Amino acid sequence: MNLAIGIDLGGTKIDIGLVSDKGTLLDRKRIPTRVEDGPEKIVLEIANTIKEVAGKQNYDGVGIGIAGQIENKSGKVLFAPNLGWKNFELQKTLSRLLKMDVKVTNDVRAATWGEWLYGAGTGATDLICLFVGTGIGGGVVCDGKILNGFSNTAGEFGHMTIDLHGPTCSCGNRGCFEALASGWAIAKRAKEIIAYDHAGGIPLLDMVDGNIDQIGPKQVFASYLEGSPIAKKIVFEISEALIAGVSNLVNAFNPERIVLGGSIMLQEQIDLVAEIAKGVPQRALKAAVHGLTIMKAKLGADAGIIGAAAYAMKEDQWNKK
Amino acid sequence: MNLAIGIDLGGTKIDIGLVSDKGTLLDRKRIPTRVEDGPEKIVLEIANTIKEVAGKQNYDGVGIGIAGQIENKSGKVLFAPNLGWKNFELQKTLSRLLKMDVKVTNDVRAATWGEWLYGAGTGATDLICLFVGTGIGGGVVCDGKILNGFSNTAGEFGHMTIDLHGPTCSCGNRGCFEALASGWAIAKRAKEIIAYDHAGGIPLLDMVDGNIDQIGPKQVFASYLEGSPIAKKIVFEISEALIAGVSNLVNAFNPERIVLGGSIMLQEQIDLVAEIAKGVPQRALKAAVHGLTIMKAKLGADAGIIGAAAYAMKEDQWNKK
Repeated sequence: MNLAIGIDLGGTKIDIGLVSDKGTLLDRKRIPTRVEDGPEKIVLEIANTIKEVAGKQNYDGVGIGIAGQIENKSGKVLFAPNLGWKNFELQKTLSRLLKMDVKVTNDVRAATWGEWLYGAGTGATDLICLFVGTGIGGGVVCDGKILNGFSNTAGEFGHMTIDLHGPTCSCGNRGCFEALASGWAIAKRAKEIIAYDHAGGIPLLDMVDGNIDQIGPKQVFASYLEGSPIAKKIVFEISEALIAGVSNLVNAFNPERIVLGGSIMLQEQIDLVAEIAKGVPQRALKAAVHGLTIMKAKLGADAGIIGAAAYAMKEDQWNKK
Repeated sequence: MNLAIGIDLGGTKIDIGLVSDKGTLLDRKRIPTRVEDGPEKIVLEIANTIKEVAGKQNYDGVGIGIAGQIENKSGKVLFAPNLGWKNFELQKTLSRLLKMDVKVTNDVRAATWGEWLYGAGTGATDLICLFVGTGIGGGVVCDGKILNGFSNTAGEFGHMTIDLHGPTCSCGNRGCFEALASGWAIAKRAKEIIAYDHAGGIPLLDMVDGNIDQIGPKQVFASYLEGSPIAKKIVFEISEALIAGVSNLVNAFNPERIVLGGSIMLQEQIDLVAEIAKGVPQRALKAAVHGLTIMKAKLGADAGIIGAAAYAMKEDQWNKK
């Protein structure tokens, strides 16, 4: 059995796991991301933690998924806003420390590798993974190959305009998919509505002891289940946006399967995946939904670690068809 | 030199051309589409016209681009609304008549083949061709291969939602790209505005002797050049929609080149391509526009014939990398 190390490198924590070539997570460790330490020190800590996690077991490669823009092949981090990294040679630096091949990719693309090879995407040659959590991102498999794009940023579905004159997004545009259906958008929308409908917001405010800043998707979904009209309105709006956004991807890419992951999709209060699976065939073009399956991601929060390891083990093999 | 026959089969006319393997259109003939004759008789007429066009020259294959949904490989026309064809074995029927290999694809994808191999798309491994005419359609090259999609309908950008609560589209949804920026949408919008601003509409109405139904993109663009506020408003709206729609494609596919074709793009009154090339880098994600070129299609109305011939000659070669 071959083993690889998979790393999910985020702005608050770093997950490091030992993964088999069957996609099994054999061991793992989480360390906090001490952004203030700077990249070199963080990479040193990662190298030490890899050794702990691997113990005496041999592994053949190391894959990292990181929230940021990565240069293809060189594995240089061009920009990782959550970490404050710019033009950092992550792949080279860690490879030198470990005396081993290291591969770096975007965290969402790593999760796509995971779902594609070991999760809900197995066997699909035309696949889209859409992750809806705090933000929205995605990964694409076209004709049996992961789509990287020309400057290695394919799959940025979060900033697809779906409501031209809609709410402002963090990117400065209006009506981005992310500004309508992500975790942050749900929280923002709840606060907006409560600001002019305080009475209607009471069930939501009660859940957070009156502290409106604490209201997030969790409270909105709980309040929905209790019948709050405000929460119903928000859930209606995000469902509508999710159906439109996913339909756009179906029309553009004509995939055979869509895998939906991320904390908003995978929460257990409302089955958004079922809503989308029901709504998309009605909205997308008939010809494009022919044979399409829409399903929930299977690897959950581990998709990033497992996928990063898979990327390290299989990228050459899978992309050299 | 190898030669192939390329056919652009539409609801009103059929263009048949003899094309060299350098993409040169050597000879051509146009015949009207007598939809009322039914598919068998039309195919017979196509076969006869091919013989006329080819004369004594040998050709190695025949490619057809048709406005409709085609089954991959079999070349069966599943549905071609303009022709009223359903489940017609176009590839088999013509192949039997000609005793020769025939290949059938969608007309927009054929035009994409043409622009990719011989037009504005040459050399690009990640390319999007967007055709904006009466309707909107597109074709995609991912990593050096034409993207067909799972049920052979990839590239249906016309029905991408970009304005969730916007104008109704022919497909029944609201705010599709096509409902905002296509030829038919421009005509509809002009009539809508004139209905409540008759005085403002006088310059436009004067161009068509008061017959409002004759107003189309040509009149709107001409009126724009003469300074009409209504036409300016419409041109502003379609530019905004085109920039948002193209930005969506840039974020999703991260192409190295975008080629813009179709009658609305290629008209000579307003340089919409320049508008889009200026607006997209401001709207799409920085990382995704890195190295991106946006340019006008080169083959014009011949893209379909040339592309269909190229598809017949090169599909196997280009897609078996």
